[in-house]
Amino acid sequence: MTKWRRGAYIGKFQPFHNGHLKCVEYILTKVDELIIILGSAQYSHSLNNPFTAGERIEMIRLALKEANIPHDRYIIVPVPDTNGVHSEWVARVLSYSPKFDVVFSNEPLTRRLFIEAGFNVQNIPFFNRTILSATEVRRRMIDDENWEELVPPAVASYIKSIKGVERLKSLTIKDKL
Amino acid sequence: MTKWRRGAYIGKFQPFHNGHLKCVEYILTKVDELIIILGSAQYSHSLNNPFTAGERIEMIRLALKEANIPHDRYIIVPVPDTNGVHSEWVARVLSYSPKFDVVFSNEPLTRRLFIEAGFNVQNIPFFNRTILSATEVRRRMIDDENWEELVPPAVASYIKSIKGVERLKSLTIKDKL
Amino acid sequence: MTKWRRGAYIGKFQPFHNGHLKCVEYILTKVDELIIILGSAQYSHSLNNPFTAGERIEMIRLALKEANIPHDRYIIVPVPDTNGVHSEWVARVLSYSPKFDVVFSNEPLTRRLFIEAGFNVQNIPFFNRTILSATEVRRRMIDDENWEELVPPAVASYIKSIKGVERLKSLTIKDKL
Amino acid sequence: MTKWRRGAYIGKFQPFHNGHLKCVEYILTKVDELIIILGSAQYSHSLNNPFTAGERIEMIRLALKEANIPHDRYIIVPVPDTNGVHSEWVARVLSYSPKFDVVFSNEPLTRRLFIEAGFNVQNIPFFNRTILSATEVRRRMIDDENWEELVPPAVASYIKSIKGVERLKSLTIKDKL
Amino acid sequence: MTKWRRGAYIGKFQPFHNGHLKCVEYILTKVDELIIILGSAQYSHSLNNPFTAGERIEMIRLALKEANIPHDRYIIVPVPDTNGVHSEWVARVLSYSPKFDVVFSNEPLTRRLFIEAGFNVQNIPFFNRTILSATEVRRRMIDDENWEELVPPAVASYIKSIKGVERLKSLTIKDKL
Amino acid sequence: MTKWRRGAYIGKFQPFHNGHLKCVEYILTKVDELIIILGSAQYSHSLNNPFTAGERIEMIRLALKEANIPHDRYIIVPVPDTNGVHSEWVARVLSYSPKFDVVFSNEPLTRRLFIEAGFNVQNIPFFNRTILSATEVRRRMIDDENWEELVPPAVASYIKSIKGVERLKSLTIKDKL
Repeated sequence: MTKWRRGAYIGKFQPFHNGHLKCVEYILTKVDELIIILGSAQYSHSLNNPFTAGERIEMIRLALKEANIPHDRYIIVPVPDTNGVHSEWVARVLSYSPKFDVVFSNEPLTRRLFIEAGFNVQNIPFFNRTILSATEVRRRMIDDENWEELVPPAVASYIKSIKGVERLKSLTIKDKL
Repeated sequence: MTKWRRGAYIGKFQPFHNGHLKCVEYILTKVDELIIILGSAQYSHSLNNPFTAGERIEMIRLALKEANIPHDRYIIVPVPDTNGVHSEWVARVLSYSPKFDVVFSNEPLTRRLFIEAGFNVQNIPFFNRTILSATEVRRRMIDDENWEELVPPAVASYIKSIKGVERLKSLTIKDKL
Repeated sequence: MTKWRRGAYIGKFQPFHNGHLKCVEYILTKVDELIIILGSAQYSHSLNNPFTAGERIEMIRLALKEANIPHDRYIIVPVPDTNGVHSEWVARVLSYSPKFDVVFSNEPLTRRLFIEAGFNVQNIPFFNRTILSATEVRRRMIDDENWEELVPPAVASYIKSIKGVERLKSLTIKDKL
Repeated sequence: MTKWRRGAYIGKFQPFHNGHLKCVEYILTKVDELIIILGSAQYSHSLNNPFTAGERIEMIRLALKEANIPHDRYIIVPVPDTNGVHSEWVARVLSYSPKFDVVFSNEPLTRRLFIEAGFNVQNIPFFNRTILSATEVRRRMIDDENWEELVPPAVASYIKSIKGVERLKSLTIKDKL
Repeated sequence: MTKWRRGAYIGKFQPFHNGHLKCVEYILTKVDELIIILGSAQYSHSLNNPFTAGERIEMIRLALKEANIPHDRYIIVPVPDTNGVHSEWVARVLSYSPKFDVVFSNEPLTRRLFIEAGFNVQNIPFFNRTILSATEVRRRMIDDENWEELVPPAVASYIKSIKGVERLKSLTIKDKL
Repeated sequence: MTKWRRGAYIGKFQPFHNGHLKCVEYILTKVDELIIILGSAQYSHSLNNPFTAGERIEMIRLALKEANIPHDRYIIVPVPDTNGVHSEWVARVLSYSPKFDVVFSNEPLTRRLFIEAGFNVQNIPFFNRTILSATEVRRRMIDDENWEELVPPAVASYIKSIKGVERLKSLTIKDKL
């Protein structure tokens, strides 16, 4: 089995859910050290990006601790995106992040950009079910459905402690005065 | 009755209409001095943001003069937005604006951001009817309906003097060559 | 017949197609020298803007060479857009481009901004058919239809050499993990 | 004597001092209405730009009130600068500001840019003495000399109320750990 | 003795040297968890900022591992600076970083901005000697003096592995053709 | 002798002088096609960067025509710089420019960045004399010395036609009111 020294896993984690956790656990069987690239780091307080980078770092650390993943096996690196200038995004990631040997991603644009830059890009095999999506988690939060079952318990509890659902709901109210 | 020294009223004013004027008059019963924060100051010449900050300052001054509101009771402060980086927007407003004690707004994101920053945020009680919206004013301009009745006479006359309706209509034409 | 020394033709050219080529040929009957302003130069790798500025420069040069238009009759100038700050866009074009006497465009916002800045703006008379649009070329690329007939042969061949259709298709795949 | 409807007076006002006040009084003999363009609006908390735009607006209003200049004779417009992209700066000022007929400035770059844009640019005749400069005011603040005599009393008192000298001094301390 | 849950330590770490390490060790006696804010994250390849954020993260992790500081006692957060817009910098740090209770810094601007924002800001008591500065480390690198004694062995060895001294020296050569 | 298909020559050309022309002629003996990357494209109207990108494009075209270099042997590509974010600059150049096989430059930062990105970077052998520098040309313009002898006649004549020396001199006047 191929084993790399360092792999990068790239996502927005709005919020970090059970699917993300399974990906992390899977990639850690393939690499010695995992770099979690937290993309769109500058955005928060919108329906698609409710949480700040700092809040997302907190979530990931809590979830990985709960899953007994040691701190020395992963590095979290927040990276602001390039406002749609995709041709500069790989260079930005490479500048913010320690070096890595392989990229894990199912996201088409990420895959395309790293492939064109000559990187080894691996698919993550199977956790991509409809229900395990951050979009679905946010929808359930807004619609008062059971979102907690989709995220690690430590993340659910953290989101409650910062009144994250209240924030998300408050952003859905329309006002056009 | 509570009375504050200074209140901030935040909007885009694309264009300034009768609902905005009523809000200003209401807030002026609550505060000594009103700071009108003119948001998204950098945008113009689009369907949602047709007028420049300079044109909107002009409109507001004309409307408030017509309504006999003395110049020394308000300050207009144009503030460029932060391109979706909402977590920095309150800091930007505080940097561009003289200090204020209370924020008046019905807009959910504005309310949320100032509440999280620890501000006293007040609702504006009643003028938020469907018909009194900038969206409706712009729709009527495009559809050749009576938009003038929705804005103060001085604003209608100013918009005509700068051929504002012509500008807005010209932006609705599609071309995809 | 009016004849100007220099005219500017403004577009995004995503990609450069037969309609664009006809426009170039038409304008060259009206001006001694043509400046081709390649707008939104910073964008690439998205469904609406798949190609980099460099790739678009390459396409235009190849197409114009194939059409026997001499290199000394045109200048290609890539210009990054102003992220929606339309009021600064004319100033940006004027700064990046050699001087010109007339603007050729059917695009409403371009026309409006140059007209307000006092420029002579001319329509391009007739090539604006539904089928000759960059949107249609990109749609056919994605749907495996005949897109090659809509672009000059040299452009079709160049796009194939850089695997442009593969890039565009890869960006249509959805992933929301 | 020439009299214009509206003139623009452009400066950074770090801080607003007696020389600025004399300029304002001079220009008001030449125009009906004065637009005070407060440049480099985004900068503060540095040795050259210690005060925020909001603080500078406050200073100017206090100084002009003290000098019995009515509020309806002037408009203060903060404008962020263009990070060294000088070719776009006039367009930005024109977008943020209500229209004006003439520009008053002794600053070479400002004069050059507005002259090249076709504006009527007037010198301000005589108040430009070494001692009446914002640089000198800031130097005296740092060196514990009499800076108060260089600014209107209302400005001195405002700067004290916000502990402006303490802020400026704190920024002069070097630390290179 | 006061003990806080989380403290932030803010620096550029160009490169991370023995003085930084002593600061980290000192602060860890005062807090349960340390957040290392890596400022000016976007800059590299200049005389004052030779190393990328990714390289600086690598250095800090190697040095702290060598010093037997457990991974779960610190979090490294790279934060891009605000291009001189100091009034927005605290908001940016708060957005990128998990929450903290106290800031440790001897840098005047950092101290000033966090104090004005209402934070508890602590001095770091004694390691601020001339010789232990990143400026001195870079000077010695350029002048072929003993820079290695100023940094932790793991950092020296990492910098050599990426040919950091060669990079720095190459940037000192002048060319003005 | 090695001969490449396409080489990039990178400079600011403030203004284009005889040394630049010799470089172009030299590189054209080594490559079939030359891409002239006009860096810092967004800057103008300062002492170090007096001319706009458009004006610099004009100079280069006039000089190369005068030197009988055919239009089909070179491509001029203006590229805005990345505001000091050097790690993204190579990606930006690659995005704006058609592809090239080799970079010609004596400028240390340019060389370093392209070398780290894996490019073939060649020195330009001999034209780098003190007198043939853009800095010297600008100094002579300001000091009323013979700058014309340092630039191609067509460039001298163009700079006079746009009153370039007058612009540069006007920017040297100090005003600190």
